Amino acid sequence: MAGDATAAARRLAPRLAARAAEHDRDGTFPVDDFADLRSAGLFGLMVPARLGGREAGFAEYAAVAYELARGNGATALVFNMHASVTGALTAVNEEVAESLGVPDAALAARDRMLAEAAAGSWYGVAMSERGAGSRLSQLATVYEPVDGGYHIRGAKTFCSGAGHADAYLVAARSATDQSVVSQFLVPATADGLKVEPTWDSLGMRATASHDLHIDAVVADDTLLGGVEGLALVVAQLMPHWLIASYAAVYVGVAQAAVDAAVEHVVKRGVSELPSVRARIGRADAAVAATRLVVAEAARRVDDEPGAEETNRWVWRAKLLAGTTAAEVAASMLEAAGTSATRRGHPLERLYRDARCGSLHPATSDVCADWLGVAAIGGDPDREGTTPRW
Amino acid sequence: MAGDATAAARRLAPRLAARAAEHDRDGTFPVDDFADLRSAGLFGLMVPARLGGREAGFAEYAAVAYELARGNGATALVFNMHASVTGALTAVNEEVAESLGVPDAALAARDRMLAEAAAGSWYGVAMSERGAGSRLSQLATVYEPVDGGYHIRGAKTFCSGAGHADAYLVAARSATDQSVVSQFLVPATADGLKVEPTWDSLGMRATASHDLHIDAVVADDTLLGGVEGLALVVAQLMPHWLIASYAAVYVGVAQAAVDAAVEHVVKRGVSELPSVRARIGRADAAVAATRLVVAEAARRVDDEPGAEETNRWVWRAKLLAGTTAAEVAASMLEAAGTSATRRGHPLERLYRDARCGSLHPATSDVCADWLGVAAIGGDPDREGTTPRW
Amino acid sequence: MAGDATAAARRLAPRLAARAAEHDRDGTFPVDDFADLRSAGLFGLMVPARLGGREAGFAEYAAVAYELARGNGATALVFNMHASVTGALTAVNEEVAESLGVPDAALAARDRMLAEAAAGSWYGVAMSERGAGSRLSQLATVYEPVDGGYHIRGAKTFCSGAGHADAYLVAARSATDQSVVSQFLVPATADGLKVEPTWDSLGMRATASHDLHIDAVVADDTLLGGVEGLALVVAQLMPHWLIASYAAVYVGVAQAAVDAAVEHVVKRGVSELPSVRARIGRADAAVAATRLVVAEAARRVDDEPGAEETNRWVWRAKLLAGTTAAEVAASMLEAAGTSATRRGHPLERLYRDARCGSLHPATSDVCADWLGVAAIGGDPDREGTTPRW
Amino acid sequence: MAGDATAAARRLAPRLAARAAEHDRDGTFPVDDFADLRSAGLFGLMVPARLGGREAGFAEYAAVAYELARGNGATALVFNMHASVTGALTAVNEEVAESLGVPDAALAARDRMLAEAAAGSWYGVAMSERGAGSRLSQLATVYEPVDGGYHIRGAKTFCSGAGHADAYLVAARSATDQSVVSQFLVPATADGLKVEPTWDSLGMRATASHDLHIDAVVADDTLLGGVEGLALVVAQLMPHWLIASYAAVYVGVAQAAVDAAVEHVVKRGVSELPSVRARIGRADAAVAATRLVVAEAARRVDDEPGAEETNRWVWRAKLLAGTTAAEVAASMLEAAGTSATRRGHPLERLYRDARCGSLHPATSDVCADWLGVAAIGGDPDREGTTPRW
Repeated sequence: MAGDATAAARRLAPRLAARAAEHDRDGTFPVDDFADLRSAGLFGLMVPARLGGREAGFAEYAAVAYELARGNGATALVFNMHASVTGALTAVNEEVAESLGVPDAALAARDRMLAEAAAGSWYGVAMSERGAGSRLSQLATVYEPVDGGYHIRGAKTFCSGAGHADAYLVAARSATDQSVVSQFLVPATADGLKVEPTWDSLGMRATASHDLHIDAVVADDTLLGGVEGLALVVAQLMPHWLIASYAAVYVGVAQAAVDAAVEHVVKRGVSELPSVRARIGRADAAVAATRLVVAEAARRVDDEPGAEETNRWVWRAKLLAGTTAAEVAASMLEAAGTSATRRGHPLERLYRDARCGSLHPATSDVCADWLGVAAIGGDPDREGTTPRW
Repeated sequence: MAGDATAAARRLAPRLAARAAEHDRDGTFPVDDFADLRSAGLFGLMVPARLGGREAGFAEYAAVAYELARGNGATALVFNMHASVTGALTAVNEEVAESLGVPDAALAARDRMLAEAAAGSWYGVAMSERGAGSRLSQLATVYEPVDGGYHIRGAKTFCSGAGHADAYLVAARSATDQSVVSQFLVPATADGLKVEPTWDSLGMRATASHDLHIDAVVADDTLLGGVEGLALVVAQLMPHWLIASYAAVYVGVAQAAVDAAVEHVVKRGVSELPSVRARIGRADAAVAATRLVVAEAARRVDDEPGAEETNRWVWRAKLLAGTTAAEVAASMLEAAGTSATRRGHPLERLYRDARCGSLHPATSDVCADWLGVAAIGGDPDREGTTPRW
Repeated sequence: MAGDATAAARRLAPRLAARAAEHDRDGTFPVDDFADLRSAGLFGLMVPARLGGREAGFAEYAAVAYELARGNGATALVFNMHASVTGALTAVNEEVAESLGVPDAALAARDRMLAEAAAGSWYGVAMSERGAGSRLSQLATVYEPVDGGYHIRGAKTFCSGAGHADAYLVAARSATDQSVVSQFLVPATADGLKVEPTWDSLGMRATASHDLHIDAVVADDTLLGGVEGLALVVAQLMPHWLIASYAAVYVGVAQAAVDAAVEHVVKRGVSELPSVRARIGRADAAVAATRLVVAEAARRVDDEPGAEETNRWVWRAKLLAGTTAAEVAASMLEAAGTSATRRGHPLERLYRDARCGSLHPATSDVCADWLGVAAIGGDPDREGTTPRW
Repeated sequence: MAGDATAAARRLAPRLAARAAEHDRDGTFPVDDFADLRSAGLFGLMVPARLGGREAGFAEYAAVAYELARGNGATALVFNMHASVTGALTAVNEEVAESLGVPDAALAARDRMLAEAAAGSWYGVAMSERGAGSRLSQLATVYEPVDGGYHIRGAKTFCSGAGHADAYLVAARSATDQSVVSQFLVPATADGLKVEPTWDSLGMRATASHDLHIDAVVADDTLLGGVEGLALVVAQLMPHWLIASYAAVYVGVAQAAVDAAVEHVVKRGVSELPSVRARIGRADAAVAATRLVVAEAARRVDDEPGAEETNRWVWRAKLLAGTTAAEVAASMLEAAGTSATRRGHPLERLYRDARCGSLHPATSDVCADWLGVAAIGGDPDREGTTPRW
């Protein structure tokens, strides 16, 4: 039922928060958080009811991600990857599938993937590569057909949940035709997957976004859509999963920073300083506004996915969530003072976590460029100062 | 019907825009704009249907004000005063009236005022005074009972529409009891009203917000509520009319600035400069976010007027609309360049108009303080660095 | 003597300030201010002592411009144009002249121009054109040799002091060779000069920066340098006169805004509000910093004109003066409140004047680009997102 | 010789930089950096020549601190503490000493302390306490006279270099008279000093700013000035050591962030993106301006220590260095992108280090308040929203 998942996420948040400092300190993956998510049935959030899921829309996803992020932004960020995989799989409905020429066998495989998610599996994303960033058109990972399946070779970076997910969405180019980019759901049990523990970052330290080396043969039915070359098409159909799904997470982080600052200044007896009040008042307004923008974008994604105006809200959400989180967290640290910079203090972590939002692709500067082109009446997916994908 | 008024306002906007430069230049009141508003039936926007009005809620008011402001912010600002008078009169419904001890005769008088509005009259607000600002508790204008009515003496400033409104909402203190503040709807035809043409301002130049000198005897039934001393109570019941009704106007002004900048840079052939795009993209996002905040505040005012959370949205709307309008207009002028600073260019006017929003009471700094106190868990109407009313 | 001119300017500032409101209101040229400047001997500020001038360096110019701008930014801005003409003429010393192939007759003509300045004449600049902006490489005004001189035809815009200067520096292209751009000092008495009163601007309203239509024959000796095609060379030799000479003016305007705000808040009894103090404190620091930057740039211009590091300071000065003036004036208006937005209040004017700084070429966005290229190790005069000249 | 020390610091910076990542990661004290400082003779920087020192002024100190901070901000920050102790001791010259009633024996003791510094010892500062912050008037550490000396008991926090310094400047109150605050130079070898390793911070992690527990008897001659109660007097005589000595460090950190960003974007081939250039250009200007402000404050401290105008520059330097460092580092990280957030990347560390500047007392908000009071003509050391010491 709509709202149930959000309430469940809200209930989990304090448990996530209680573990956040430790995982941040050690850079360890929040295994217990994910057990909690599994128990709460949240792995099936985006999965159709007929396959055992909660059949949530993007708006409900955004509400869940916000609540989880108030507990631990890193956990919410990894969950976001799983939600984007299952959400995109679900979004390839019969109509879309037909227009893309997806064979029935691929639909059956898709259903199996979703049913397993509903039953408690979760998926990571292995898209970015060193050098290429997250741009699909620049990938160096290649695949070629082999008997009964595909042989994939390459190296991915920023693969959140590496070593913990049950399978990974891997993007790769055809070895025989550079312009063909496909996606596979590679089981974590496949021979030839190796996690290189490279993730040791300023913020969002618990995401285990390590490098993933791949030299694996996978079965036919791991090719998403059952037809090669769908990756770019699907990406452009669903910019919300690539662009705005981060946004809800960073609004949650920003709200957590305001909450932590309020708690801190009250405890330290400095809540009546005019400068402290002014900082908190301005932060409160900024976070509330950004939360509305994310909700509006999400509502439109559900109502009119892919519409021009929907996409503008998607990019606005990304831009504002990233910049607001960073600015708010910086100001809250300034309101709280030096004592909040000790490691282990929530604000110390939130300040670092919050900085990461506007750096995820599309970065804030790319978002501003995209939105500027759109406002001027151009085609923001094609024109622009920087390549988009 | 809901939405009709908004559509009507949208249709009027280009007519308002076409006259805006002249009224701004000369500081003249937009008489024709108000004739248009009358023809479109917008003076009855907030009036109950049983009295001939459109019975709009605050959300519809906000939508109308936004559309009008895209045409001319000054016209929208004066209209806002009329809407706040008629809206507040309407909001004193039977339940509120009973709790305040409003006698039947006063309700009948109230209905006459509203019916006249629906029939084409409009009202200004004469509250601020030099020295006191808009704080009701500091007024120097006094009244005393005389045979058949009241004698009001004092001087008001920032009285928008002075010399053009059909009546003025005048706030005054009792001459015999300083703590009693009442409000009267003084007809423009009353003897002893004198408009002193003092309004000659940076922005919003067409509002005719002149000084109004009052030495007038008014009838009994001009006392709003029929009971003395209701002014502060009503003000605190309806912070949205004092605080957030400006907000919709300034979002409209900000959007007009973005639109004017887009038109300018396209015409001048500089729309592909990266810095221009980035400025317009960021402005687009900021205005869209602020518009959502105003809509959210308005929706909550309709659903739960006076609720604690409603009021927080009301103050957020005021803060963000004021600061966003000023920042966006400044950036748009910078995107457009020197040629947009010639008088007569829309951006030249919008830049000045947009600056005024955060200066209206409650100023942005007061809003930040109020919101900070609220976020920290205090009582923002009572605590705080600066007096609120 | 060094410093005398600065002291003289400081003494004149209150006289300029007393007249500023009227000239701003009416858009009239401050004729009396210029009479004061003449009496104080400031027209000879940049002229060599051997020709009767004060032989000031760029640092002294900057100090004078700052003081004048504290009185009236518009007056300082027009004075800046005269200083740039006389300063550039003086800077073409014997060494430079020889390297450029300047004939002796041209040096004699140059000396006459400078001597006349020292004796009380002043010069305006007619460079910008509609469409071309201030980019020398895009000019449409042309000249061709005629018997005994040159025939110049074209139209200039933003010609500060038009109708008041004794002569105008006019940039034009050769009618026979598009790549040759030359400059002439055209006497105001020449037949065929027509001022079209187009200047009616947001800020700096008293500069009389009207359009100047030219269809005039001028004598041989008005060609600066006596050789055609020197305009671009000289412009690139002296970026300080094109880029940073505005900067001192805008720092003076910013300081005037702080001073006006302090006076206002003290008079209104609101100087103890924490938000007012914080705004004034931050503005004080920002203006002081920017003033130092302008002084540093000026000092380096005197010590090592044209050096790479000198030019970086020149561009930094332009960027920071423009953005600081606009931001400080906006914040001071917010500190002072609505009562400071009445026309005639110094802050109302200063807010508009201050906005113009970052719009003068090179705009702030161009400055940021230039400085970025320089910091990265590129050639900022040649690379970059936007054409420089 | 003036400048020698600066050149020495500049030569050391790359050595400090090479060790910075490791000390930041582990939170270990840069022992080798301090050996380098000793070898370079920098411990005697502020010591009079007659005692073997370099007899530097505040300006030279600021230049040295800036250079060291370009290598490692944490090292520079600890060095700053030593410089402030030796600088303040030196500043109590004969004239000041006489006015304060400092006995000859105390001058001899002072000379010994300084001579030891010149010979290679360095001193930390143990002033702040949990709860009291750095406000001398709120200290809980007490001392009482005992036979041959004083018994000091209390606990200090944020004691940079704890466990590594040769002696600590300890501030304490008299056990018998609460209003008497004195300072002692307590040898690290004293019985009863215990370092509690509490320092584990967001940034400046290598400063070893641990807690220091004191229950020690010290000799008579460790009482600075030889007279009780001088601490507050001296603090107010030398605000530069309490307020602005941090500033030079944070400008160095900010410049290091710009340099690291330039290196990063060139290496990654993204230096031609317009948004990257604009960010770097604006950062370049901001850092250059702030560096000038610090130099100006330092120059005035040398010329007119304690003068009203000097102190305003001191507070401006603190405000601008703190806010500029934080803003510049945040923008540089955004220019560089996600790959610069990996731990071990210089920008990742610099971003955290840079955030700490405006949080050191006096915080940026306190500085803004102080400067606002001063600009308005008040006494900023006595008036103000927040207590100053």
